[in-house]
Amino acid sequence: MEQFSPMLPALTDEELDPRAAAVFADIRATRQTDFVNNFWRVLANDPANLERTWAELKEVMAAGTSLDPLVKELIYVAVSTVNNCTYCVRSHTAAARGKGATDEQLAELHAVVAAANKTNRLAIGLQVPVDEAFA
Amino acid sequence: MEQFSPMLPALTDEELDPRAAAVFADIRATRQTDFVNNFWRVLANDPANLERTWAELKEVMAAGTSLDPLVKELIYVAVSTVNNCTYCVRSHTAAARGKGATDEQLAELHAVVAAANKTNRLAIGLQVPVDEAFA
Amino acid sequence: MEQFSPMLPALTDEELDPRAAAVFADIRATRQTDFVNNFWRVLANDPANLERTWAELKEVMAAGTSLDPLVKELIYVAVSTVNNCTYCVRSHTAAARGKGATDEQLAELHAVVAAANKTNRLAIGLQVPVDEAFA
Amino acid sequence: MEQFSPMLPALTDEELDPRAAAVFADIRATRQTDFVNNFWRVLANDPANLERTWAELKEVMAAGTSLDPLVKELIYVAVSTVNNCTYCVRSHTAAARGKGATDEQLAELHAVVAAANKTNRLAIGLQVPVDEAFA
Amino acid sequence: MEQFSPMLPALTDEELDPRAAAVFADIRATRQTDFVNNFWRVLANDPANLERTWAELKEVMAAGTSLDPLVKELIYVAVSTVNNCTYCVRSHTAAARGKGATDEQLAELHAVVAAANKTNRLAIGLQVPVDEAFA
Amino acid sequence: MEQFSPMLPALTDEELDPRAAAVFADIRATRQTDFVNNFWRVLANDPANLERTWAELKEVMAAGTSLDPLVKELIYVAVSTVNNCTYCVRSHTAAARGKGATDEQLAELHAVVAAANKTNRLAIGLQVPVDEAFA
Repeated sequence: MEQFSPMLPALTDEELDPRAAAVFADIRATRQTDFVNNFWRVLANDPANLERTWAELKEVMAAGTSLDPLVKELIYVAVSTVNNCTYCVRSHTAAARGKGATDEQLAELHAVVAAANKTNRLAIGLQVPVDEAFA
Repeated sequence: MEQFSPMLPALTDEELDPRAAAVFADIRATRQTDFVNNFWRVLANDPANLERTWAELKEVMAAGTSLDPLVKELIYVAVSTVNNCTYCVRSHTAAARGKGATDEQLAELHAVVAAANKTNRLAIGLQVPVDEAFA
Repeated sequence: MEQFSPMLPALTDEELDPRAAAVFADIRATRQTDFVNNFWRVLANDPANLERTWAELKEVMAAGTSLDPLVKELIYVAVSTVNNCTYCVRSHTAAARGKGATDEQLAELHAVVAAANKTNRLAIGLQVPVDEAFA
Repeated sequence: MEQFSPMLPALTDEELDPRAAAVFADIRATRQTDFVNNFWRVLANDPANLERTWAELKEVMAAGTSLDPLVKELIYVAVSTVNNCTYCVRSHTAAARGKGATDEQLAELHAVVAAANKTNRLAIGLQVPVDEAFA
Repeated sequence: MEQFSPMLPALTDEELDPRAAAVFADIRATRQTDFVNNFWRVLANDPANLERTWAELKEVMAAGTSLDPLVKELIYVAVSTVNNCTYCVRSHTAAARGKGATDEQLAELHAVVAAANKTNRLAIGLQVPVDEAFA
Repeated sequence: MEQFSPMLPALTDEELDPRAAAVFADIRATRQTDFVNNFWRVLANDPANLERTWAELKEVMAAGTSLDPLVKELIYVAVSTVNNCTYCVRSHTAAARGKGATDEQLAELHAVVAAANKTNRLAIGLQVPVDEAFA
């Protein structure tokens, strides 16, 4: 499907500066795939931001922490949905499926997101005061 | 702490109409506590909405589905954070703790939410095109 | 209730420059009350913005157009709820009541806002394609 | 126009489970048309959510309540605009037109939404304190 | 690239009413180009809103004030990114480039926007109390 | 002013683990003040996130890049306004003043933010198609 062009070009491997190339090598090694998606190719125009952002995602989304990687990916999809980021909803739903998310889990995730959005707006619109128990 | 008053009054048990009273009874039975928080007391001004919203939360947040109740509560906190609902962040963080969330898990949750918000804005601001793999 | 101070001071009538004073006079004449709320007192630090914003609200929210003033005020409350602006939710709910909004209408308004927020997130999170009929 | 595929498939009538089929029958009977739009077809992957969401919309958006159905539809468009839901803006604008909304009313609606968004951000950015009259 | 149609038609020069035509003439004179972009063509269906909005942008974005026009355009891009307005991100990034923004400045802008979004959510999600120094 | 407590405690200097203490030392050295605000004290519960976030802010907001530090701080205030983060609006407005922002520049900033929010919603609500010139 034809799309608009990004605000900075999606760089090919040949166009990367050495810092960006090093990040791409780590993305490929970490994910064990040659595929590097457009997010990183556009961000590669700013190697410092690319380094920071990849290092952050690699650390935050890693296995071996108190939250399961699939749970973290589902939270990522939830946030991307509320922020209405098409690219992020699509890429992180794909990532969640790659980590084993089932259709049922994704449907359930969106039922929770929907309910939360509903009650969030009711609490705000009706200006519900915080109970002492939650203060 | 003194707070502003809600847009519709937080009803006491004595002020509930019969439909709202029935919902409150079910909230108490389901949660096994006499405490009914302000969200429901304000929503009780609209018994039909109270019935719908409680029935939805009871069903969506229940145990026994494909996502663990704690995971669903963490997703709820994530959504409430992005929507910036103070009442909801506070009440659902309390609920998450009640379901066993540790400080470490909550800190990790917010690290994921923070990273997602960051990359969401980069994808939007740089107008990253969706890869064929995600289309 | 004690609150934080604004980013620019809420000006008293004595502190207004002549352009701001003229706007305040028109606010008082239009609303037929001496009360000028804090929004205008803070905005008065930028007389050009004060003039533009008051002129816009006066024109947009006026009676005699295709939408009833109460309907427009309810839409204002709905937008303020989604934007989570406490000041705006409170001041425009008061304005809606001043224009005749009942408790029942306000409750119904928030039921619509809640339902819309819920289905908005479902459409985004599930990436529902636009039907030809809506294209 | 070619579009991305949804995160869960848009089900045909033949692919519906019995609970979803019953909801579709009620949508058709209530709206008096054979057309069922993609929102419901994608949501049909989760029959419980489909049932809840349709029941909620049917009740909330019905005629015979304190707010006129057209007014409720305009509020729906306003919320969808602030949430930036393309699908929802388009489908509910179509619904508003179906309930009689004129070009003039739609233009006026967006003028109110625009003004509200503007003053919402001014109140937040300048941190305007809530007046006692609104507390 | 094929796109959906707007909610009100994008008017040609021949379809403008006299008030809208006068605004278009001023847009062309101010920008010193014959090109009038779709935003104004769609808004031209509501000549009063077209007049107000153009007058506001012309005044707010003008040179000769305390903030440089390029700085104001970068702020515009930042806001449009957070609001996730594709049309606005694209048109105001183009405007920023027209006022001299370099690739490096745009990349830096988005690094700031990304960092701000991240810390905004941490402050909200963790409910950080305002320090006395900022109160 | 009395406030709600944060979701994780604001740590005193004595409660910091060594990694957090090292970050606090760098904050103090970089800012040349002993004052460490609550944001960092709450984030100190997650030393890895504290390290990442401080390193990011230190690098992104530094002098000597293509955008002036004051310009970057103004962009930070703009984003915080749209995200409606009270803590962030207040702390970054203070930071902007510390970098020399005048009342006039802050007022102008908010006039731009207000105008952008207004036109963002018009472009979204009216579904304005992207011009070829911006595609």
